[in-house]
Amino acid sequence: MEADAVVLLEKGDNKVPPTWIRPGAAVIRKLLKYQFQILTFLTFYLQNVVCSSSRLLQEQQYRPWRLRSLKLNPLTPVPSDIEISRAQTPKAVTQLAEEIGLLPEELEAYGRSKAKVRLSLLDRLQSQPDGNYVLVAGITPTPLGEGKSTVTIGLVQALSAHLKLNSFACLRQPSQGPTFGVKGGAAGGGYAQVIPMEEFNLHLTGDIHAITAANNLVAAAIDARMLHEATQTDKALYKRLVPSINGVRKFSPIQISRLQRLGIEKTNPESLSPQEVSSFVRLDLDPNKITWQRVVDTNDRFLRKITTGQASTEKGQMREVRDILVIGSDMRNRLARMVVGTSRSGRPVTAEDLGVSGALAVLMKDAIKPTLMQTLEGTPVFVHAGPFANIAHGNSSVLADKLALKLVGQDGFVVTEAGFGADIGMEKFFNIKCRASGLQPNVVVLVATVRALKMHGGGPSNLDLVAGGCHSNLRKQIQIAQLTDTEAEVALVCQIARECGAADAVPCYHWAEGGLGSVELAKAVKEAASKPSHFNFLYDVEIPIVEKIRTIAQKVYGAHDIELSAEAEAKIDYYNQQGFGSLPICMAKTHLSLSHMPEKKGAPTGFVLPIRDVRASIGAGFIYPLVGTMSTMPGLPTRPCFYDIDLDPITEEITGLF
Amino acid sequence: MEADAVVLLEKGDNKVPPTWIRPGAAVIRKLLKYQFQILTFLTFYLQNVVCSSSRLLQEQQYRPWRLRSLKLNPLTPVPSDIEISRAQTPKAVTQLAEEIGLLPEELEAYGRSKAKVRLSLLDRLQSQPDGNYVLVAGITPTPLGEGKSTVTIGLVQALSAHLKLNSFACLRQPSQGPTFGVKGGAAGGGYAQVIPMEEFNLHLTGDIHAITAANNLVAAAIDARMLHEATQTDKALYKRLVPSINGVRKFSPIQISRLQRLGIEKTNPESLSPQEVSSFVRLDLDPNKITWQRVVDTNDRFLRKITTGQASTEKGQMREVRDILVIGSDMRNRLARMVVGTSRSGRPVTAEDLGVSGALAVLMKDAIKPTLMQTLEGTPVFVHAGPFANIAHGNSSVLADKLALKLVGQDGFVVTEAGFGADIGMEKFFNIKCRASGLQPNVVVLVATVRALKMHGGGPSNLDLVAGGCHSNLRKQIQIAQLTDTEAEVALVCQIARECGAADAVPCYHWAEGGLGSVELAKAVKEAASKPSHFNFLYDVEIPIVEKIRTIAQKVYGAHDIELSAEAEAKIDYYNQQGFGSLPICMAKTHLSLSHMPEKKGAPTGFVLPIRDVRASIGAGFIYPLVGTMSTMPGLPTRPCFYDIDLDPITEEITGLF
Repeated sequence: MEADAVVLLEKGDNKVPPTWIRPGAAVIRKLLKYQFQILTFLTFYLQNVVCSSSRLLQEQQYRPWRLRSLKLNPLTPVPSDIEISRAQTPKAVTQLAEEIGLLPEELEAYGRSKAKVRLSLLDRLQSQPDGNYVLVAGITPTPLGEGKSTVTIGLVQALSAHLKLNSFACLRQPSQGPTFGVKGGAAGGGYAQVIPMEEFNLHLTGDIHAITAANNLVAAAIDARMLHEATQTDKALYKRLVPSINGVRKFSPIQISRLQRLGIEKTNPESLSPQEVSSFVRLDLDPNKITWQRVVDTNDRFLRKITTGQASTEKGQMREVRDILVIGSDMRNRLARMVVGTSRSGRPVTAEDLGVSGALAVLMKDAIKPTLMQTLEGTPVFVHAGPFANIAHGNSSVLADKLALKLVGQDGFVVTEAGFGADIGMEKFFNIKCRASGLQPNVVVLVATVRALKMHGGGPSNLDLVAGGCHSNLRKQIQIAQLTDTEAEVALVCQIARECGAADAVPCYHWAEGGLGSVELAKAVKEAASKPSHFNFLYDVEIPIVEKIRTIAQKVYGAHDIELSAEAEAKIDYYNQQGFGSLPICMAKTHLSLSHMPEKKGAPTGFVLPIRDVRASIGAGFIYPLVGTMSTMPGLPTRPCFYDIDLDPITEEITGLF
Repeated sequence: MEADAVVLLEKGDNKVPPTWIRPGAAVIRKLLKYQFQILTFLTFYLQNVVCSSSRLLQEQQYRPWRLRSLKLNPLTPVPSDIEISRAQTPKAVTQLAEEIGLLPEELEAYGRSKAKVRLSLLDRLQSQPDGNYVLVAGITPTPLGEGKSTVTIGLVQALSAHLKLNSFACLRQPSQGPTFGVKGGAAGGGYAQVIPMEEFNLHLTGDIHAITAANNLVAAAIDARMLHEATQTDKALYKRLVPSINGVRKFSPIQISRLQRLGIEKTNPESLSPQEVSSFVRLDLDPNKITWQRVVDTNDRFLRKITTGQASTEKGQMREVRDILVIGSDMRNRLARMVVGTSRSGRPVTAEDLGVSGALAVLMKDAIKPTLMQTLEGTPVFVHAGPFANIAHGNSSVLADKLALKLVGQDGFVVTEAGFGADIGMEKFFNIKCRASGLQPNVVVLVATVRALKMHGGGPSNLDLVAGGCHSNLRKQIQIAQLTDTEAEVALVCQIARECGAADAVPCYHWAEGGLGSVELAKAVKEAASKPSHFNFLYDVEIPIVEKIRTIAQKVYGAHDIELSAEAEAKIDYYNQQGFGSLPICMAKTHLSLSHMPEKKGAPTGFVLPIRDVRASIGAGFIYPLVGTMSTMPGLPTRPCFYDIDLDPITEEITGLF
């Protein structure tokens, strides 16, 4: 395979504590070989979508935007992220929208610097060919992250502001958990950022709040329903669920859906038999089989304790509403299909059964629209849907990518990122997101820091999923480290990456210089995109659930085999029996190792991957196995970031966000 | 006292089930007399602020807005609220802002029809005299509400669009609990509504979500801190709380505040004694005395169960962050002062002690700005802060009122409402909100429906806090009722109200006709505002806590006395000892009766008001006694509103909201 992978490294911000062991060339060579094996398994050949699109619509011309880019004057030493963000005045989002070809009626401004984009745009640009689709993925990261967002922003700044190519970044909206907990902001860093960074990192346009509200409305509906069923007769329940209004009783459309699922083809409430009334009014949820949980968007340990009917290690947030937002299409029906638990007779109980699906769609009606923002150089960015690649998709939304691909047009570039390492985010990007969207990436950019290479090289095992290294979260690094990567180290990694089959390997400097520092990367991406390639899925969704899990475990993680708990086996049988067997797999696994053991760095082999439990997100459309002892809810550390965050009451400026 | 109270009634939408007993003229006379007694206790004389302002700034002229009002063509029968709302096209919020004298840089548009208004406006209009301040309050309501919001909107539509007087409505943002639970929307009703009503009733500009996020961040911080304190030594905690970065340890400003509260006047982390380190790192929260709770903005029974350290009947949502938003001033410090619990040694532990106060201010930075919307006739409305007058303030924000009073100018009118009955919302408006703001109302409009008069008249006791009746939530009424108020009934109530001392009593028809139907009310309000009056507080904050509670119980509720539980007494002692004795009182009492017993209608006498517990919202700045068995968290009914709510995926129109 001739992988269109670009390996990149940034010199100057890859500092590691001097105690860390440095890998030799042999180790790096081994790592990179393994990485390209993985890439081959996952992608086979990345197809050049540009070529096939141009065949379809040759009459449509590439139209370069008249984008007024914002000037950068990078300082040395590089100031803090918030200082850089605040020193730049973003252009009005209405102006940006006009520059990239949006009509005024397609925009819903939220303040001066962010706006929702209406989905009617997709219809208007239906016949426009898509641009090139570029995925930024990473190596198995250190706990601090390896700077994929920063590479994504640096790359579009280079493409748009310096090579004058239409390009869009599509990013995930960060959760407030990391913002206030350990990680700090997620708007990129240094001179490659989305601005205003405080808007990006806080409420933005309220999507996460809408998701939370939708999720918690379901939770409240479950508990209320269980209480009412426990305390009322069939007749009383029926009287209240289908009340007589001015002497007339009528089913709501949501209730008619439930009747149909129960096989009752009646529409007159007076005509139901007592038996039918009983099936209609009683969801009869088994309290031990409720799979829906309350969420708050904070890393909240407490929520681990309050969930109902779950083993003690797997508490936390289920992110189905967010994952439905990622998929985007058919939202109303996907929300209705969400399974919240199982009845005592073993029947799945859905959001539609609770009568709440329409209200959920209403709560989500604005969240479905991507939010337009801009980079430090005034180039466009979509922010949409959520993080958490380890326990969920971890990708930004299909709708944002689709809108952006239309807006950039045939020769343009849409750069999106997949969360955590390629084993997690990229695998899900390919096998879940691309399967759902029908889109195919043209180029994969693999980000690695020398820091992470060293971590893997110095661990007990060999390195695995690393192609090269790039920029990372410098502020934290300066705190923990003293050493600077030598030029020789960077050159070594680039050389090895090319030997291993990367289309190119490029050091880049966007963190310190903005887009100008990533022009070489941008050129390499453009070159890689111009080559034909092919794309295939790792597995066929029609093979059995167990085989799908085993394929991922062996081909991607390097496991010898998988081992299913009795509970996991029973669940798989149940899902097969309910007709959910053909869904793709979304593994919930630690992102800190290829294996299920976070402390095992490099590429562990011979291990057996334990599947503790298997769940299903029927609305989002996937099965998600829980691997090992993975907690789906992170907690706050002793000294969370919030200690440093404050608001100046006079200037309204935020301090301490980074 | 010559009360500037206007009594109003709407004919045509006061329908009651025929089984309800109708009060005779004697009963109504008794009710109204009682009501004006209450009003006298609460207000003494309402001062005419217009006169005193004009003395201060005679050079500043009244400037009428050039407001383009939107035409209404009311239909008969009156369509549903959502149909009326959708049939009217709101003008762009930017245009509305310009018409009422806002500068473009003072506006942050959120989509086309709503915008945040920056607080810098207050500085710019500092020397502008305030307009007239009108409070809309209600009688003790039926569970369906008596239409105060609708009166408020109808009145400003009449004032602005028909009498061409600058006027602003200031409303509370509804909670999603009632929207999806029992009550339906809260944007007014019929031809007196805020539009678009679906925006008003859903996420709006995200303020409630910000409040929820802030609240839950505190909750997460509490649990994380308790875990870390339980599992780490003093030394380890200190190492993590004050980490060495590049060999340097530094306290954050929030940590220095804590040291100062502990009486440690040191700023060098290396200089603390082991004893000082221990006091600094250990909040030592007593798990049985944590008063902070998680919230979700849904009527969620489940949250009643998960709170920690609370008696089983008082679970639920504490609304201090929202109440701080109502007060508005000094937000950063008020958030810092919020008490989340008590240490084992009996010391109050604050949000500042948790290190989280700055982050809270950041989360709330946009929520502090009121949201501008418009009525069906295109007149301006501020929506800001929250409901829940029974367990919290129940008033819209001071900041919204202040901004509006400046914007309408000297001869203009700002109409705001206080939640539930006058015993609840109006009492808190006078004694908490006005005390905090320094503002004084010029006119009180008392809303009563014939339905509610009948409920009270027909109950076991006499009626109490009723002055007259007006419009109510018609849609619900039509569902439950057949009868129409006769003209004779309406005339009777108006006559009696005037006899009892009301400045005027006016039937009004805004629900069916829009502002035109409330022109008589608007004229009566204008007339009342032109008369001088005086305003006094019910109690002096410096009298003992128990006396303040007793004064409210006896003078407002008609209780014989109060009875404190042992817990309540202990808490009062504790608050006195901590220096919180001079705060005003915010009673948490059922809104369905003047007493603590929701089933007791009319004006019960001779009862002893049980004070189960006493809490303190130190940040918001009040003591709140819990009366009787009041649950602070409502639950969802068997058939919540959400059954009817849905989204048309093609047109994006919402159905089922009302």
